[in-house]
Amino acid sequence: MLALQGSQTVRLASVAPCLRGAARLAPRLASSRSASTFVKFDREDPLNLESLLTEEEVAIRDTAREYCQEKLLPQWDGDILKEMGSLGLLGPTISGYGCAGTSYVAYGLIAREVERIDSGYRSTASVQSSLVMHPINEFGTDAQKEKYLPRLAKGEIVGAFGLTEPNHGSDPAGMETVAEEVDGGFIINGSKTWITNAPAADVFVIWARCKWDNKVRGFLLDKGLKGLSAPAIKNKVALRVSLTGSIFMDNVRIAQDALLPKSKGLGSAFSCLNSARFGISWGVMGSLEDCIDRTRAYALERHQFKRPLASFQLVQKKLVDAQTEVSLGLLASLQVGRLKDAGKLAPEMISMVKRNNCGKALQHSRVVLDILGGNAASDEYHVGRHVANLQVTNTYEGTNDIHALILGKAMTDIQAFAN
Amino acid sequence: MLALQGSQTVRLASVAPCLRGAARLAPRLASSRSASTFVKFDREDPLNLESLLTEEEVAIRDTAREYCQEKLLPQWDGDILKEMGSLGLLGPTISGYGCAGTSYVAYGLIAREVERIDSGYRSTASVQSSLVMHPINEFGTDAQKEKYLPRLAKGEIVGAFGLTEPNHGSDPAGMETVAEEVDGGFIINGSKTWITNAPAADVFVIWARCKWDNKVRGFLLDKGLKGLSAPAIKNKVALRVSLTGSIFMDNVRIAQDALLPKSKGLGSAFSCLNSARFGISWGVMGSLEDCIDRTRAYALERHQFKRPLASFQLVQKKLVDAQTEVSLGLLASLQVGRLKDAGKLAPEMISMVKRNNCGKALQHSRVVLDILGGNAASDEYHVGRHVANLQVTNTYEGTNDIHALILGKAMTDIQAFAN
Amino acid sequence: MLALQGSQTVRLASVAPCLRGAARLAPRLASSRSASTFVKFDREDPLNLESLLTEEEVAIRDTAREYCQEKLLPQWDGDILKEMGSLGLLGPTISGYGCAGTSYVAYGLIAREVERIDSGYRSTASVQSSLVMHPINEFGTDAQKEKYLPRLAKGEIVGAFGLTEPNHGSDPAGMETVAEEVDGGFIINGSKTWITNAPAADVFVIWARCKWDNKVRGFLLDKGLKGLSAPAIKNKVALRVSLTGSIFMDNVRIAQDALLPKSKGLGSAFSCLNSARFGISWGVMGSLEDCIDRTRAYALERHQFKRPLASFQLVQKKLVDAQTEVSLGLLASLQVGRLKDAGKLAPEMISMVKRNNCGKALQHSRVVLDILGGNAASDEYHVGRHVANLQVTNTYEGTNDIHALILGKAMTDIQAFAN
Amino acid sequence: MLALQGSQTVRLASVAPCLRGAARLAPRLASSRSASTFVKFDREDPLNLESLLTEEEVAIRDTAREYCQEKLLPQWDGDILKEMGSLGLLGPTISGYGCAGTSYVAYGLIAREVERIDSGYRSTASVQSSLVMHPINEFGTDAQKEKYLPRLAKGEIVGAFGLTEPNHGSDPAGMETVAEEVDGGFIINGSKTWITNAPAADVFVIWARCKWDNKVRGFLLDKGLKGLSAPAIKNKVALRVSLTGSIFMDNVRIAQDALLPKSKGLGSAFSCLNSARFGISWGVMGSLEDCIDRTRAYALERHQFKRPLASFQLVQKKLVDAQTEVSLGLLASLQVGRLKDAGKLAPEMISMVKRNNCGKALQHSRVVLDILGGNAASDEYHVGRHVANLQVTNTYEGTNDIHALILGKAMTDIQAFAN
Repeated sequence: MLALQGSQTVRLASVAPCLRGAARLAPRLASSRSASTFVKFDREDPLNLESLLTEEEVAIRDTAREYCQEKLLPQWDGDILKEMGSLGLLGPTISGYGCAGTSYVAYGLIAREVERIDSGYRSTASVQSSLVMHPINEFGTDAQKEKYLPRLAKGEIVGAFGLTEPNHGSDPAGMETVAEEVDGGFIINGSKTWITNAPAADVFVIWARCKWDNKVRGFLLDKGLKGLSAPAIKNKVALRVSLTGSIFMDNVRIAQDALLPKSKGLGSAFSCLNSARFGISWGVMGSLEDCIDRTRAYALERHQFKRPLASFQLVQKKLVDAQTEVSLGLLASLQVGRLKDAGKLAPEMISMVKRNNCGKALQHSRVVLDILGGNAASDEYHVGRHVANLQVTNTYEGTNDIHALILGKAMTDIQAFAN
Repeated sequence: MLALQGSQTVRLASVAPCLRGAARLAPRLASSRSASTFVKFDREDPLNLESLLTEEEVAIRDTAREYCQEKLLPQWDGDILKEMGSLGLLGPTISGYGCAGTSYVAYGLIAREVERIDSGYRSTASVQSSLVMHPINEFGTDAQKEKYLPRLAKGEIVGAFGLTEPNHGSDPAGMETVAEEVDGGFIINGSKTWITNAPAADVFVIWARCKWDNKVRGFLLDKGLKGLSAPAIKNKVALRVSLTGSIFMDNVRIAQDALLPKSKGLGSAFSCLNSARFGISWGVMGSLEDCIDRTRAYALERHQFKRPLASFQLVQKKLVDAQTEVSLGLLASLQVGRLKDAGKLAPEMISMVKRNNCGKALQHSRVVLDILGGNAASDEYHVGRHVANLQVTNTYEGTNDIHALILGKAMTDIQAFAN
Repeated sequence: MLALQGSQTVRLASVAPCLRGAARLAPRLASSRSASTFVKFDREDPLNLESLLTEEEVAIRDTAREYCQEKLLPQWDGDILKEMGSLGLLGPTISGYGCAGTSYVAYGLIAREVERIDSGYRSTASVQSSLVMHPINEFGTDAQKEKYLPRLAKGEIVGAFGLTEPNHGSDPAGMETVAEEVDGGFIINGSKTWITNAPAADVFVIWARCKWDNKVRGFLLDKGLKGLSAPAIKNKVALRVSLTGSIFMDNVRIAQDALLPKSKGLGSAFSCLNSARFGISWGVMGSLEDCIDRTRAYALERHQFKRPLASFQLVQKKLVDAQTEVSLGLLASLQVGRLKDAGKLAPEMISMVKRNNCGKALQHSRVVLDILGGNAASDEYHVGRHVANLQVTNTYEGTNDIHALILGKAMTDIQAFAN
Repeated sequence: MLALQGSQTVRLASVAPCLRGAARLAPRLASSRSASTFVKFDREDPLNLESLLTEEEVAIRDTAREYCQEKLLPQWDGDILKEMGSLGLLGPTISGYGCAGTSYVAYGLIAREVERIDSGYRSTASVQSSLVMHPINEFGTDAQKEKYLPRLAKGEIVGAFGLTEPNHGSDPAGMETVAEEVDGGFIINGSKTWITNAPAADVFVIWARCKWDNKVRGFLLDKGLKGLSAPAIKNKVALRVSLTGSIFMDNVRIAQDALLPKSKGLGSAFSCLNSARFGISWGVMGSLEDCIDRTRAYALERHQFKRPLASFQLVQKKLVDAQTEVSLGLLASLQVGRLKDAGKLAPEMISMVKRNNCGKALQHSRVVLDILGGNAASDEYHVGRHVANLQVTNTYEGTNDIHALILGKAMTDIQAFAN
């Protein structure tokens, strides 16, 4: 027998007692572990995510849910950021400046509740929180923080984030927007596209390549500057409750204090995206949850061949597959949030949950959409709207394929972006 | 602004402070949450599952891993149960009787390490622990426990579990094996099939319908009883390192004390299966992890067109998809284990992780197998063996479809098994 | 050797000569079959479908393509039916009454060209041809044919087909619309929904259950009848270039000659649907072809990481998978068309190509849409519009699942619609 | 109206009459096209492929089917090539030399019947016909043809094809086997692997890089040459009825007349592979058909929950999806065969049907395998054997990914093999 055979087994044997020693824990566990007592399955929280949240996080989630369910409607409304601000839902992870200073998990929970209504609202809030307030807080001066953060937190002013350019979606290293140093300040030239919030923005975080050292840095541009315009993109087929636009900068002159001084290189911009992507990974699960709720209700109510659709095997499988992915995706995002809060984050973790959750949300929202049959074509059933939104969330802030290659590099140490 | 508008908002406002209040937590968090400090991504544990385990669980996992990697080879070996027993790996969750009394999470971690070598070994151990020791511990008398558990724990004797019948795979309610009360005992008639361990078993847990009240109960049958035989099933294409057989019972006479007195109905049998399924959900992830490790190494070493396969986008995507599912599946199984340990389990949770993890392991092991190209056909690369095994784990202890319908019932309150 | 061993082999041997005899054909074949001469691969017609068409069919296809490419734009235009009519594209398979009398294959080729522009146009034309002109031609009196067909063929009047009811999408047997015999005619009561062309229709083919014998029959209702209304369904997310509406019939009184006398039972209605579905199976392939063309062009033009997207393996695979399905789907529809023209059709064949082609078109249009990255959200790239349309074509005229079960019944002789 | 608006419409109008003129064809068609007469759906030939075959092809198919069903068993049997030869099934497309001189479609039909039994038999026959007889016929001298073809055709001798090398699976351009010119002949050095038939081969077609001009050419090596060995590869998990081996050539000396003089470059080797791949595309459909037949029969016979498995929606969908792909795949292979027979082949067409049919056969054989539940693990149900075989056919003679990139190049003009 192994335990009697020399040095290697001695080593094993010396570890083995821990299994026996574990018996000391057993009494308490045993009492609660009878084979015949079970809790009831909660179809809305199959794996009891709730049990992993703090009381505080539950309270924040409930606040957000209540607000979203009662106040948010799937149409654009300019007051939404103010409402969110009044509830503390903007820039919630920031400490001070009127922000709530929550955990990143709480931030994710908020994103989920907002996107349960519509991905466009979550996009609007993500930009304000992760792409505008976050870089100001991380890379800005005290003066910049004092000037912008409190008003952004209350939703009094709206922010936009200018990174993506017309010719460089997945590849921001090719950035063409440039900043030139001039007497007492800078001149910015370039254009950005697919910028959420741009047409309504009061302040723009613009990323530009600095001519003097070829490094990318962030700048704060206020609405109304000469040479700065941000027209809306029309005829969007998705995210209709949010505004999207381009940003054109034609010799825009800004003062020295418009520079975010601690921003250094694209890595700074990416840190904002990482924060946003983390929120997206939660948000899209909320969107898929809404698709499940609605199609499940429809399947229970709608009868064909004298039976509810919900009694058909092919329909049940669709619902179950989707609910399973929600359950797994949320656990993964929770874990990434906990690690982020604990300073143990690897950026690739965010690629994994952003990619997985967006991909699964899109895939399964499409599958459950089929449950609606011909009614899928009608906006009043809402699921088609989610599907159209999720198509976008699957591509923005890093397409599914790009995140696959980021993870592929992490797994193989070989970069294959341009392969 | 919302917070100023009457009763509904008052309610919201009263919750809102919690977000602000959360700021008190912030200082500690903030210090660790700099945007620019990251940990290194660990491709073998992308979402840092390790951080969720207790020290004890890590030690148990390491014991199991060390043993499995050094001792287990993918071929049948009758001493394996003894070796596992000597390390405390059998019936580990049971308290007393020489068992380790570990958490169910630890049980899952062991299953993962064993199945990293081969699903057949894990099957052998699952049966011993969850399908034989578990029902004796849950439904047996003290005398039965004293008689069997210590020797089963040490691997000195081998157990088998007789539930599935030739005509009733997914539908055990149709059970045809019967127990008849006779003077001083019972007579059992019937047959069972696809029974892991049966050809080598010293004791059989047999489930039979009792003629006197039509209820299903468990009985303990010792090897060598007259009328009892357990021939091996030959030519298996999978799980070759485990033994599988039928059980034939032709007027097998047993004494009164062979009855597991606390077993009542199929529910008792199902509680054993639930325990086994939980272990499977961990095990198959180990198997997929081994597939990933091996194909990744192959892809790095093998060159085509003067570049390593691992540099091809189509190859990276295969590895990344698989690793993502491992990361999510393990988190889900961990959560179910924690809930089981805490007495907060719903059986459908186990259906969810058993189904998801088996399905994903099968799907992605097949995908990464393609990385081997023509060498996929050779046993020496091991991945094909895992694929063949995972095909079986996806169907046994509840097929993928059956678990979908169990979950479908939980989601819709409509049973569609026979639909 | 086999050929020498008794009666069974004699039988084989007597067949074997045919293989040798086949050599007589060889000379002509051999000359053209050199191993080293190949034709050039045509990416737009990979399997040379063209070679399977008659000259006439090619000419018709070219007429339709030229018209569609030059005249059809993806927006609703009331003159479209007139234009199509002037070219002979409406009811083309009907002989006489000003119709072209083409093969069904030609009808399919037209549908493909029209849907290459937009599924909504094809829907409009399908209804006119297959669901209105076809039943009048098949089930109508000479007087009815003379009255309606020539004007429908020219597109001077628009037709609609009222079968689907609000509560009976996949299950028309549950029809609630009723016809009652009254002095000199009938009274119709009921409602229909998701009716293409309804808001613009001059004549409605309405299917109703006849109270006197409980059979379903078709009736022709002219616009403007008292009690008849056909309001448009607003906010459609797809098929926007076509009009869709409900039909409400509140004691609509019609004369005796409004009955389609040869319509008997739902089978008559289904024969119309079969004709339409056949056209859909061609049409959706045209739509997917347009998606491929557009995303391929985009991938060639768009650069990321200093290389065209089209050079990335992950992009090439998307295009290739889609093009392969187009090639196969068209061959299948061609074969069904040839069989239909030859009177050798089984209705399940149409279920097969309708289901396969719609399902594959939807699946792969979504995949190639991802090639557009963020630009997928913009209408100006057209692919998103096709995707939204194809979602509908996959469900209307029999959802993917319903056709699966129709085929399942054909394969197993077991009806599982209500399972 | 269009027809009245100037030059462009005149052009359309001048084409339009062809639609009207088509009416002349209508009478014959119309009579056979009544809406209410249908043929019965044939579940084994859903789209009536039979109607597209010549009488001769049907007779050949029947000969092959009868032989295969009655004589072939899924185990290795050395007499099989002789039996096939006696029926004219080897090298059937070759004219003369005792070969049948059939169409390539007939060749495909034979492959389908053989692989309906086992992919290993088809592999054996493919090698003999396409990879040995074909190159001798195409690139050999009259003397070589006279010497080898008649005996290969009868199956009296066995051939093997040595192209693939241990380090160059998907990339034969990296070939390391070399031929050196010496007095009166050549010396060959190198090794080949995964060579079907090698251990039993009497003659080897070996491809080697010629040192004198760096071109690849084919050589005929007879068994027994000094320095030539062909050991079997053991422990294959698939294609067990065929023999597979390596070929080692250590200073093998051959005469001048061992060179296939018309072979020029890798293109010659590829032309053999193309011929083999064409046969594979038919063969794998036969294999999937057998999987469908067997699982359908099982589903009809096996009852769970008191109903046949075949009555469950989830089971019907599996069968229908598989049968649909068979129907489409066969039509595509037929079309490619007709084009090959007519000298209108593009090599990429073969990539398309090889890749599609192998991929679909593998995918759907796996899906229907699940119908067997636990019995999937038993060899006696045969489907698992097909699945293991199809895994290999999906990778050999060009993996799924390689053919995707060949087609990707055809679609984009960009080579991405090494991307």
